[in-house]
Amino acid sequence: MKIYDIITKKKEGLALTEEEIFFTIDGYMKGEIADYQISALLMAICLKGMSREETLFLTSAMLNSGETVDLSAFSGLTVDKHSTGGVGDKTTLIIAPIVASLGCKVAKMSGRGLGFTGGTVDKLESLDGYDASLSSCDFLKQVEEIGVCVIGQSPNLAPADKKLYALRDVTATVDSIPLIASSIMSKKLASGSHSIVLDVKCGQGAFMKEPKDATTLAKAMIDIGNGFGKRVCALVTNMNVPLGYAVGNRTEVWEAVQVLRGKGEMRLTELCVGLATQMVSLALDIDKQEAEKRVNFAITSGMALEKMKEWIKRQGADIKYIECPELLLNAKHTKDYFARESGYIEKIQADMVGNASAELGAGRKQLGDGIDPTAGIIFHKSFGDFVSKGEKIATLYSGSNDFDSACAILTQAIRLSDTQPEAQKLIYEII
Amino acid sequence: MKIYDIITKKKEGLALTEEEIFFTIDGYMKGEIADYQISALLMAICLKGMSREETLFLTSAMLNSGETVDLSAFSGLTVDKHSTGGVGDKTTLIIAPIVASLGCKVAKMSGRGLGFTGGTVDKLESLDGYDASLSSCDFLKQVEEIGVCVIGQSPNLAPADKKLYALRDVTATVDSIPLIASSIMSKKLASGSHSIVLDVKCGQGAFMKEPKDATTLAKAMIDIGNGFGKRVCALVTNMNVPLGYAVGNRTEVWEAVQVLRGKGEMRLTELCVGLATQMVSLALDIDKQEAEKRVNFAITSGMALEKMKEWIKRQGADIKYIECPELLLNAKHTKDYFARESGYIEKIQADMVGNASAELGAGRKQLGDGIDPTAGIIFHKSFGDFVSKGEKIATLYSGSNDFDSACAILTQAIRLSDTQPEAQKLIYEII
Repeated sequence: MKIYDIITKKKEGLALTEEEIFFTIDGYMKGEIADYQISALLMAICLKGMSREETLFLTSAMLNSGETVDLSAFSGLTVDKHSTGGVGDKTTLIIAPIVASLGCKVAKMSGRGLGFTGGTVDKLESLDGYDASLSSCDFLKQVEEIGVCVIGQSPNLAPADKKLYALRDVTATVDSIPLIASSIMSKKLASGSHSIVLDVKCGQGAFMKEPKDATTLAKAMIDIGNGFGKRVCALVTNMNVPLGYAVGNRTEVWEAVQVLRGKGEMRLTELCVGLATQMVSLALDIDKQEAEKRVNFAITSGMALEKMKEWIKRQGADIKYIECPELLLNAKHTKDYFARESGYIEKIQADMVGNASAELGAGRKQLGDGIDPTAGIIFHKSFGDFVSKGEKIATLYSGSNDFDSACAILTQAIRLSDTQPEAQKLIYEII
Repeated sequence: MKIYDIITKKKEGLALTEEEIFFTIDGYMKGEIADYQISALLMAICLKGMSREETLFLTSAMLNSGETVDLSAFSGLTVDKHSTGGVGDKTTLIIAPIVASLGCKVAKMSGRGLGFTGGTVDKLESLDGYDASLSSCDFLKQVEEIGVCVIGQSPNLAPADKKLYALRDVTATVDSIPLIASSIMSKKLASGSHSIVLDVKCGQGAFMKEPKDATTLAKAMIDIGNGFGKRVCALVTNMNVPLGYAVGNRTEVWEAVQVLRGKGEMRLTELCVGLATQMVSLALDIDKQEAEKRVNFAITSGMALEKMKEWIKRQGADIKYIECPELLLNAKHTKDYFARESGYIEKIQADMVGNASAELGAGRKQLGDGIDPTAGIIFHKSFGDFVSKGEKIATLYSGSNDFDSACAILTQAIRLSDTQPEAQKLIYEII
């Protein structure tokens, strides 16, 4: 078998066999196949596509390139959630304690932020003492005992995906549905949960701009999950505006606590209830209405908030942050951002808000950069709200006193209008 | 300008600008753009194509990546020929003295053989003493004084093409008309001749299998040449069977002398007259009939044979080889290859014959390998001839006494039939 022939085959639009795909991934990981050969193959895949079978083979090859987590001891109760990445997306912080309080098992590995997108691990580590690098033994024990554990992703989880993604990122071969779907699913499958709920974002702050493309991606991922015997469903959701009021790290934990206290922003709460409902329904095998009832009860009864305390305490952080979340808004410097004119907010462009937050210190440009846990933005107004000239739209938080570039980006990100914009759907579709 | 954006643009099927193409080639030559980025771009070009303008820009960028030969002193009389590569193709050895004897100037840089394809420089160097590495000053002086000089290609001629070709060769991105056309033409244009005749081969021993693809390639190359103000024409010719009787190095020089003596195999002679006619017509700006008359006269009068002696003597070889060409058939070992049954020869597969000749020592597997100048094959029969069982079809020449694998390949290459096969066209088209 020769990589040259495999590239040629894909260039001609033919389907690769399981052997050919495993040979390629294996050879690439061993350094026997060069980057420049793989990038030519990736471009051919972008332009010629991959069949359902090929996508399954590729997922399997990447999944099997590293360690896998065995969660079979939890007899089907384990449930994972994946978001394709957004701005202000703190749903994991909210959903994990909700579903764990209802008897599901959340054994979750999360990522760090990059560019304008935040990362759940960064948000959790913004709580002093939170340990996101437990041993796999402690990880499983905690899931067993309290039903929830969230740690950083092991570098040995689907390492082939990591190596391929780094190459795709510099060769303009990212935007291929089978490549995106197999990349995400190889990591989710290696993480071992029995049920998986996917939150596929679309809009200006997401990779997919159109709901129909997001739906195609969602279906491809569900197809892969089912092919591996998992229960999978997906929500296609709006990421034109940031999710909720807060963007950053501590600022987002603050908002997560608001939701668990029943005081969360409406759309954020709606999405969390929607995602948690699917997770509970899949994991406990109960109908959606019953699942939704239980999810709402977990919030209103305070069960979920208690589970959050138990969880973050168990991983080393102080529960004072949950009991008194205002402690989280303790940046050295703050600055209010005011409306320059009156009007209805018709745009808060999510990716730009993410960039503004990163400028304040909340994000990183390159993996490995440090972040300022106190930095971020809290909006006081949402999409569609009316603001009067001089009214406060947002408060910016940072360890440094330089707010100029973040404010300049916000000015670009926010647009006012004389007429009230039409309401935007939050959940486009549940698949 | 970023290579990522350039790759994306081509992936989306858009045309690149002159600046983008120059930025790409320049960055690649400087090592600022990586192999894996260029191979992704090459695959996108293979699958999405390039416009006429883009092909001209790419040719220009490669042409300008190294030295160029200035032949302007010869006021339009310089004429070059390029063959896309074949088996038994000794036309340069025959045509160069013909057209030089008629007042054209042949300042030619030729290549070496690789795989089943022979190289003109190897054939010339099989004559003891022939010096194919003259200084550019001596090269031009010889062209000035005797009208013909053939040397090896300077490594600094279109080095970007060399680097790109090496990458295409391992990433399955060779077969793209704009890439092939710009690769060939960048070298031809850097070589400086004012008129260029292209011999585009098609058939089993050539890269292009079908005449229509060869015609498309020919037109693309003519288009480039015209874009650079050159006079260009192309012949699309048959390479299903080897060209002439001889394959190898000295064996091919032997056959070249036969043609110049007026005793050449019919199809080889026809092709040489066809190519030389176009060259003379372009370089001297005379009509085809007049050019053909002069070409035939150059052969029948012996002028061309005299020019060949003058040429190879001037470059250091002994004219005894031309005066007594049988001296060239001096391999240490020879072996006759006989017909195993009776029938008409309906196939002599060119690429396999090239491989058999390489097995005997006439070719190289990798650039840099040495060759045996005495090795090769001379056929006694051609396509369509009837042979009786036990009749001699070919004689094999080699410095080693091991003929087994070459004979085994020949057995695969030659097929006999009970009925006489239909004659095959030699020249499909003149464009």
